[in-house]
Amino acid sequence: MRFEINKDKLLYHLIVAQKALSTKTPNPALQGMRLEVLEDHLVITTSNADISIQIKLEDQSLAIESTGSMLIPGKYFTDIIRKLDGQTVTLTQGDDSLLRIEADHSDITLNLLELDDYPNLVFTEKEQFVKINVRTFKTLIRQTAFSTSTIENRPILTGVHVKIDGNRLAAVATDSYRLSQKAIELESDYEAMQAIIPGKSLEELVKILEHNQDHVEIHFDQSRVLFKYRNILFLSRLLEGNYPETSKLIPKDFPVRIKFNKEALLTAIERASLLTTRDSHNAVVKMALRSDDTVEITSNAPEIGRVLEEVYPVDEVEGSPIRIAFSSRYFLEALKVFASSEVTISFTGEVRPFIMTGEYDEDMLQLILPVKTD
Amino acid sequence: MRFEINKDKLLYHLIVAQKALSTKTPNPALQGMRLEVLEDHLVITTSNADISIQIKLEDQSLAIESTGSMLIPGKYFTDIIRKLDGQTVTLTQGDDSLLRIEADHSDITLNLLELDDYPNLVFTEKEQFVKINVRTFKTLIRQTAFSTSTIENRPILTGVHVKIDGNRLAAVATDSYRLSQKAIELESDYEAMQAIIPGKSLEELVKILEHNQDHVEIHFDQSRVLFKYRNILFLSRLLEGNYPETSKLIPKDFPVRIKFNKEALLTAIERASLLTTRDSHNAVVKMALRSDDTVEITSNAPEIGRVLEEVYPVDEVEGSPIRIAFSSRYFLEALKVFASSEVTISFTGEVRPFIMTGEYDEDMLQLILPVKTD
Repeated sequence: MRFEINKDKLLYHLIVAQKALSTKTPNPALQGMRLEVLEDHLVITTSNADISIQIKLEDQSLAIESTGSMLIPGKYFTDIIRKLDGQTVTLTQGDDSLLRIEADHSDITLNLLELDDYPNLVFTEKEQFVKINVRTFKTLIRQTAFSTSTIENRPILTGVHVKIDGNRLAAVATDSYRLSQKAIELESDYEAMQAIIPGKSLEELVKILEHNQDHVEIHFDQSRVLFKYRNILFLSRLLEGNYPETSKLIPKDFPVRIKFNKEALLTAIERASLLTTRDSHNAVVKMALRSDDTVEITSNAPEIGRVLEEVYPVDEVEGSPIRIAFSSRYFLEALKVFASSEVTISFTGEVRPFIMTGEYDEDMLQLILPVKTD
Repeated sequence: MRFEINKDKLLYHLIVAQKALSTKTPNPALQGMRLEVLEDHLVITTSNADISIQIKLEDQSLAIESTGSMLIPGKYFTDIIRKLDGQTVTLTQGDDSLLRIEADHSDITLNLLELDDYPNLVFTEKEQFVKINVRTFKTLIRQTAFSTSTIENRPILTGVHVKIDGNRLAAVATDSYRLSQKAIELESDYEAMQAIIPGKSLEELVKILEHNQDHVEIHFDQSRVLFKYRNILFLSRLLEGNYPETSKLIPKDFPVRIKFNKEALLTAIERASLLTTRDSHNAVVKMALRSDDTVEITSNAPEIGRVLEEVYPVDEVEGSPIRIAFSSRYFLEALKVFASSEVTISFTGEVRPFIMTGEYDEDMLQLILPVKTD
């Protein structure tokens, strides 16, 4: 096996492939990247317990002298290619289990891993798949996946529930203290289906998707989902089980509605969260609508000090005075995903979930469960 | 005590003062910033076990209504000022031990610390002091302090030895495996003196010094040194004891001299250091001058692979073939502080220290002790 290729082109794809590389694994073969050199292109494959990536690399700089397959220690390989001088790199596999990397005045040898130990991964594209604008899809993930649970006591909640019906795709995530929901319109109609995709897989996927007008294809299978973006195949396992019925968690009647300037609300909550009790993950901040329609944001860390912020709603407030307490981290994470510069918060009652919506964030809703205080 | 000031002006100086703030300390008073409000200026003081900072803050935005002194929790105060909206911040101390911070629509209260617990710090300027261009001094620190020891078994080696004689200031640092030495010419003559300044203090000082044409004043005292830069006083303790005589460590005769392009050598060593044994702090790289005057850089990590780099010297090589092994970290750290684009390495023998010099790095020398290999 011997070929040469433009170094930067190779590096770009190795960095993508690295997203699925295992670093700590009982199976050392998964620390490897499988590189297949075919007649006129390369195939790079990586995999860990949750996701697998396969890249088909064609390039005009690619000059293949002989074909072959090998399993390369992935992290070392990427680090070396990144540090090379020169435009072109030549890779050669000898009869022995060594890979020789030559570029400029460098001559580097890597011990290969045992190719036979690598799992057999199947990246099957289906005949029926869902096609979505990549920017729209990336935004949908960013607006929902952060609400998945990171603790494993209810594994199903570590996933994003995706439901397709006709030309509508809806995504929901909740860790049972908050909920994020976003729906988008698809370019054509699809058969009804649903799946639960691990939040962590989606967070790796968004790092690969670019913010452009291309499309991403989603190929659903029984226990797996394959995303195809340009020359990249991204495979994730699906979570098994029934996702909870979340629609009944969302209140219908909102006696109090307040519209805020998003930036003013954000900075006020950020300041309030500076003076809360130590455990910043559960830093509690209070919000109160006064009878003069001003909103007070307060926090109190008895040993350190206290914050009082006044925020003036945009437009007239609907409803009567209310007091509510919540996790500042949940509030800030939800607020930050809005594209709208004005965000409306709708309250049902002091111990009932409240929701955030924005005029320019169509079909998106963020819900937070208040915290009980004395 | 009550005054108002431009928020950004205050923040800029709090960030400087924070460099000497204790975070983990048995004395909670040292987590405080002392703020003195005088007739027409503020004085901000911070201190930890090694360094103390005092800033005199005068500004046209400063409007003082009443004077006073207080000890403010430093980290919380800086974090709050950083996050405030609005241009101006108003600070008020009531009769109680509270500080009120008002800006825009924020009203924040911090519990003050006990001012009486704060140590009495003296920042005395001397009549005789050394005056140095700040850029020159900053470069001198950057070129020497990294070679100080970080382990405490010989405390004296954690400092930089500074010696003044006439119009010459010389600095030396060594951890006994490497040595950095740099001398500069002063603008006037001074009495002979010497001091050992903790390397860590100097590393904090360089963060405060800007890269401009101002001057820094150095006021030496028996056991302390005071640096004065603009409106900032920076006080460090000195290390006591006799600094080792380092001049005899530096070889005089160099049968082998090789001049390198700095960048080519740097990237070759960086690549070689990718494939060395685990403990990257002592990653050993070998260098050999071949009889054809090419230099080979090699490394070998038996389980992973090996690197061979060829580097072509600039100009003709003096001397005969030689092989030497060294810590790649020490080599790279030394090489990076050169301003010259060509660096000469001079060798005395395979187990003797070698030195690096550069044409445009006047009076600077970096020395490294080789590692013995089989």
